[in-house]
Amino acid sequence: MNELVNKVSPRTLTGFMELLPSDQILFNSMKDTIKNSYEKFGFLPLDTPVIELADVLLAKAGGETEKQIYRFKKGDNDLALRFDLTVPLAKYVSMNYGQLTFPFKRYQIGKVYRGEKPQKGRFREFYQCDIDIIGDGQLSILNDAEIPSIIYNTFKELGFDEFTININNRKILNGLFEELNLKDKSTDVLRIIDKIDKIGKEAVVSELQLIDVPEKNIEFIMNFIDISGTNAEQLTKLKELGIENETFKEGVNELESVVNYINILKVPEKFYAINLKIARGLDYYTGTVYETFLDEYPQIGSVCSGGRYDNLAEYYTDKKLPGVGISIGLTRLFYKLNELKVINAKKTSISDVIVIPMNENVDYALSVATKLRESNINTDFYSLNKKVKAKFKYADKLNIPYSVIIGDDEEKDNVITVKDMQKGTQEKMTVEEFIEYFYNNIK
Amino acid sequence: MNELVNKVSPRTLTGFMELLPSDQILFNSMKDTIKNSYEKFGFLPLDTPVIELADVLLAKAGGETEKQIYRFKKGDNDLALRFDLTVPLAKYVSMNYGQLTFPFKRYQIGKVYRGEKPQKGRFREFYQCDIDIIGDGQLSILNDAEIPSIIYNTFKELGFDEFTININNRKILNGLFEELNLKDKSTDVLRIIDKIDKIGKEAVVSELQLIDVPEKNIEFIMNFIDISGTNAEQLTKLKELGIENETFKEGVNELESVVNYINILKVPEKFYAINLKIARGLDYYTGTVYETFLDEYPQIGSVCSGGRYDNLAEYYTDKKLPGVGISIGLTRLFYKLNELKVINAKKTSISDVIVIPMNENVDYALSVATKLRESNINTDFYSLNKKVKAKFKYADKLNIPYSVIIGDDEEKDNVITVKDMQKGTQEKMTVEEFIEYFYNNIK
Repeated sequence: MNELVNKVSPRTLTGFMELLPSDQILFNSMKDTIKNSYEKFGFLPLDTPVIELADVLLAKAGGETEKQIYRFKKGDNDLALRFDLTVPLAKYVSMNYGQLTFPFKRYQIGKVYRGEKPQKGRFREFYQCDIDIIGDGQLSILNDAEIPSIIYNTFKELGFDEFTININNRKILNGLFEELNLKDKSTDVLRIIDKIDKIGKEAVVSELQLIDVPEKNIEFIMNFIDISGTNAEQLTKLKELGIENETFKEGVNELESVVNYINILKVPEKFYAINLKIARGLDYYTGTVYETFLDEYPQIGSVCSGGRYDNLAEYYTDKKLPGVGISIGLTRLFYKLNELKVINAKKTSISDVIVIPMNENVDYALSVATKLRESNINTDFYSLNKKVKAKFKYADKLNIPYSVIIGDDEEKDNVITVKDMQKGTQEKMTVEEFIEYFYNNIK
Repeated sequence: MNELVNKVSPRTLTGFMELLPSDQILFNSMKDTIKNSYEKFGFLPLDTPVIELADVLLAKAGGETEKQIYRFKKGDNDLALRFDLTVPLAKYVSMNYGQLTFPFKRYQIGKVYRGEKPQKGRFREFYQCDIDIIGDGQLSILNDAEIPSIIYNTFKELGFDEFTININNRKILNGLFEELNLKDKSTDVLRIIDKIDKIGKEAVVSELQLIDVPEKNIEFIMNFIDISGTNAEQLTKLKELGIENETFKEGVNELESVVNYINILKVPEKFYAINLKIARGLDYYTGTVYETFLDEYPQIGSVCSGGRYDNLAEYYTDKKLPGVGISIGLTRLFYKLNELKVINAKKTSISDVIVIPMNENVDYALSVATKLRESNINTDFYSLNKKVKAKFKYADKLNIPYSVIIGDDEEKDNVITVKDMQKGTQEKMTVEEFIEYFYNNIK
């Protein structure tokens, strides 16, 4: 039949990541690390559909988001693919409000879809790894402090030792603008300030001039965002500004609380810093905000951002649902780190061991494989009757650390020959001896 | 702003599973068990896009599949959501042939999409958990035997003790039809036989008459599929039929090999059985076929099916890629088991412990939580300043097995009070003592 078939050219869409097994193992290792870290802090799993009703998904969207969305009809339904994990969370909490336990701490790790112009390092399908803590009407500032502790733990577990969690509070900026009578322009001003690291101080000043901020206020704003020093010094300088605006003072107090608790949560001071420049471009955030940078790879940009918001789901419900959360864009992060060859995976092979029979009679080799698997050792089995060289090439290509070689002698003596594929050394022992060795020295 | 917003009714599409956290934990526990079992046998992870080019995805499809598919345009692209994990695998292996190591053993656990008429227990978005072993031109019969060993291990790990892996070989049936000169009708005859458990013997006979199978042959077919007894007895009876057709004899030999190796792989005989009636409705399979039933819940139908095929990817490539694989339809399985309340989850809570501070000063409580998390104990923290009753209610609702209560006395004595939430007992100890107790007695 084969020759009658018209071949279709097999291809994957541009902007969709599809990895070779060795890279997929690295990717999954990162994904599992993030998941385990989120679970360590007591977050509950959630898995919402990829497809939603378009009117539900777009309740809040507009502009750019709406253009990027994958939207289509099926029967009478107007459908869309989720473009983030926050809108599905808002929907979920609104729908299931009566059945959830608050504060509701959930994580979701899943693919989202944005039909952006494909370019290097930009993806149309990508994983987001989100956590959010949602309160029923109220939410303690403690949660704002726990977030940096989770970021710290997660990136340490991912193998990084040089990163900075930047922390700010939107109330400080909002209060400042109230004080300067710039409230009407605060969204614009925040957007401009947010770009300072990308475009520089002078460009920020010009942009502020363009939206008619008085020179005196521009000077004040620039001096304000120039406040530097240790966290304690910055807090002191903020208080010394003598701004009496209530929102401003609330923001400074919250920031001080957060820094204080982060310290108690044992996050070393080198890993976090007050950064009054970060504002997060979105209108969404209302309190603490976070941006995390890998100090050695600033070109990657923020690897974990988020913040506190007053209302998760005002488009679906009258319930007041304040929350705080962060997101890691895993697909892009993986792509960038892999490009830089700096992924610190806990696992580079799925199998711990491969059993390689040297003869056609594989009965003893199969029983060895079964014993290893019964001891929870991931075990591959080489099943083809090929030359020895081909067998070891398979093990090598798959990065499997140990080969268990089974020939006539091994079967006769009821032992196995274990070859350390890295060192090239080999040794005879019983299966039971190897299992003990494995759990004492390898696992 | 809240009062100005027009509310959208938050709702999830019919046929899309969205679980409450307690059920999501059970679901994820099953998913992880399946994943770990697949990895134990050395399968490599794969994660292909949910969206593919429609012409690639539909290269082989037709009829029912094409009607059910989610297909839409984005820009100039004609796109479709994957409806299984086999077509993406075929595409992947064809595309990456030169970079893969054969035999290529991969697992993929992911969501697939079929716009079926929604009905109870039927889903439009559902998880498939697939493994396949793909050979480059050749594939050992050993792999056909390893599959039942994987099914056995997986369902045992899922907590089942009563299930049967039904095994047959399509060559036996095909050879029989050649012998009976029914080759032209073999697809129809196989389809009819496949229904015997649903419609009964008499209906099968009538349907065979309808497609003009001669009475003599119908009798032969019915006697053949009536062969019963132990695996050894069935193999003997098959050989005693005296059929000299080569395909038939090859099938019997393969089936005998598979049964022999399954035995060496230590799958107890009660968990598998030759069943000459199963054919699998698809034209796809060419050798060994599998169907697995939970003996106590036959109403669920087959929970794990699959088989051997000659050509994975003839629509994409001239390369001969024989394979053998199985699939577990996890969403439906979970739904049915949950309905029957028979899910044996290893975990019913994410957190092992919740730290509950009794006072407003939470510093000591936070440092205890950090110590527990540093010891890899999943630890929730109760962050609201509510009444004691509300705090314990939270822990109860989340099924967290241990509460760590921190009041003035605990802080003064540098200890914690651990409450076993199941037994209701409580005891004072140091954090270090609890960590030791946890790893020796609980984890």
